[in-house]
Amino acid sequence: MSGGGAMAAAGEEVPNKMVILKRYVTGFPSEDDMEVVTGTARLAVPPGSAAMVVKNLYVSCDPYMRGRMTKHDRPSYVPDFVPGEVLVNFGVGKVMASGHPDFKVGDLVWGMTGWEEYTLVPKPETFFKINHPELPLSYYTGVLGMPGLTAWAGFFDVGKPKKGDYVFVSAASGAVGQLVGQLAKLTGCYVVGSAGSDEKVNLLKTKFGFDEAFNYKKEQDLDAALRRYFPEGIDIYFENVGGQTLEAVLDNMRVHGRIPVCGMISQYNLEQPEGVHNLFQVVAKRLRMEGFMVFDYFNQYYKFEEEMAGYLKEGKVSYVEDVADGLEKAPAALIGLFTGRNVGKQLVAVARE
Amino acid sequence: MSGGGAMAAAGEEVPNKMVILKRYVTGFPSEDDMEVVTGTARLAVPPGSAAMVVKNLYVSCDPYMRGRMTKHDRPSYVPDFVPGEVLVNFGVGKVMASGHPDFKVGDLVWGMTGWEEYTLVPKPETFFKINHPELPLSYYTGVLGMPGLTAWAGFFDVGKPKKGDYVFVSAASGAVGQLVGQLAKLTGCYVVGSAGSDEKVNLLKTKFGFDEAFNYKKEQDLDAALRRYFPEGIDIYFENVGGQTLEAVLDNMRVHGRIPVCGMISQYNLEQPEGVHNLFQVVAKRLRMEGFMVFDYFNQYYKFEEEMAGYLKEGKVSYVEDVADGLEKAPAALIGLFTGRNVGKQLVAVARE
Repeated sequence: MSGGGAMAAAGEEVPNKMVILKRYVTGFPSEDDMEVVTGTARLAVPPGSAAMVVKNLYVSCDPYMRGRMTKHDRPSYVPDFVPGEVLVNFGVGKVMASGHPDFKVGDLVWGMTGWEEYTLVPKPETFFKINHPELPLSYYTGVLGMPGLTAWAGFFDVGKPKKGDYVFVSAASGAVGQLVGQLAKLTGCYVVGSAGSDEKVNLLKTKFGFDEAFNYKKEQDLDAALRRYFPEGIDIYFENVGGQTLEAVLDNMRVHGRIPVCGMISQYNLEQPEGVHNLFQVVAKRLRMEGFMVFDYFNQYYKFEEEMAGYLKEGKVSYVEDVADGLEKAPAALIGLFTGRNVGKQLVAVARE
Repeated sequence: MSGGGAMAAAGEEVPNKMVILKRYVTGFPSEDDMEVVTGTARLAVPPGSAAMVVKNLYVSCDPYMRGRMTKHDRPSYVPDFVPGEVLVNFGVGKVMASGHPDFKVGDLVWGMTGWEEYTLVPKPETFFKINHPELPLSYYTGVLGMPGLTAWAGFFDVGKPKKGDYVFVSAASGAVGQLVGQLAKLTGCYVVGSAGSDEKVNLLKTKFGFDEAFNYKKEQDLDAALRRYFPEGIDIYFENVGGQTLEAVLDNMRVHGRIPVCGMISQYNLEQPEGVHNLFQVVAKRLRMEGFMVFDYFNQYYKFEEEMAGYLKEGKVSYVEDVADGLEKAPAALIGLFTGRNVGKQLVAVARE
């Protein structure tokens, strides 16, 4: 996953700007935990190899990356990053060289790539082809990529929504939340979202069509807020934040409610995560809390891509991005996720085509 | 649900010993929160009514009753008990009088009855007929009654076991736990149980056929104990206790593990329940935690009764009861559940036939 080194072969050698992890992180990460350096890359694959070289156009900033910045005692669900090595995450790119029969030079693709200008991809078969280049390519880091599939799979497959369900979404203006809310509206649900600024709340109501939205930072008593917005209780809570929010939600769930657990961003930077004290509600209300991972749904990606591309073209789904320009801005963009600085899906434009 | 009062009609009036709740409870309950008093009952139903009068033979002591001894701000999943009124719970009885077409004098039945000698049941249709009186009648408070159906539904319908799964059961010698373990063995699973005394641990291994069992009170580090018993991790955790046990289990679950949540007895008497800090494991391991209630499975009761009666007769399932003799001993028997004094399913013999 590095642009240079032992596997490089003949071909033009070019400078390769990259973002590396400087050290493992405990607590809140800072820009200083990463470093932008310049190495080199070869725009060719080793002879006989089935690898490809991708020119990265957009890379995605996602909350789950925080977990990878910590050294784990036991193996985690994704590998820890390695200090001194380039960060990796989903991104959109253009194939510059390929030894793989399914990928040819010029193909537009998305998949797990490096936070760098050029990435040697040893297993191109883990990448997806981009079938709707008439839509903004950056969308393939979001609404048409991993976060989009996450929202779609989590809401429909795990949440099992029915028309008329009461749906609550936290981190609702984020990459996943904004889509969950709109998918819920398309399903005929009543949807309320929470976010961390009035600007985001306004976006939820005016741009994404949420029925209601509130700024959780302005609520003294989250339980009271939820009672106000859900006098009948909540059927589906799409969980993005965890901790005290989850605790308040559990008291406001309806019988047989469902909680697709997508993430718990409020907890990622805490040395000791908050305790949730009212899990007995899982029994009392016969709740289903279910974690899921987008990886388990990759086999449905092209089905999802067609459906979501259709919604976008018909204007049924809107999408807001927060684009940082250049890899130099990538560390700050990633850190900004944890203070909620981003408005909409955070990504980094590495190069524009 | 009281033996005397406005609905009583003609018929023999008899003394009726009963256990009443004296006051709502906070924290740990004591025998003194209940009182055994004697009222009267009539062994007849009001003319034209479809009620029945049941002579109670056995009543069940179940952990969930603790919740009913507290006054709730919001309605709970079962009604709170009322100070001054008789406690109610599942029990086995004999019909003494009936205005209901489906129940006749002499029928043996089980259902929600009073902790008293005679109970006027306004809605006999909520009761089940006993189809296997050749088995001990007391079993209908347990293995053939509510706890049995709870174990069966929770393990099979919520747990979705597969042959070879690694199964952990807490409170494993209790009414539900002992059955879950045996059903898991019948399914070809590897089963480990935890309990609170060496006597109970011995019972699990020798009588109920658990593969392993341990006394959680002797484990300094529950996480280490679980790692020892489940080097490959846990596929199904049948949750009866909650709190710190749940926290240790979450770290030891396998990917796509399931946690049927039956109860959380360790938490019922705490003023502030313990916090669970590692719910992120629900995402990382794509776990499903699902609460359930036996009420939702009552429509499958007779199917269950046949299956379980078969296992008992074939010697495939063993069952251990802890029987308190007489209503006078009922308060102590109930309190004993929360200190783990009972060995096996706790019940009270009100009258023997």
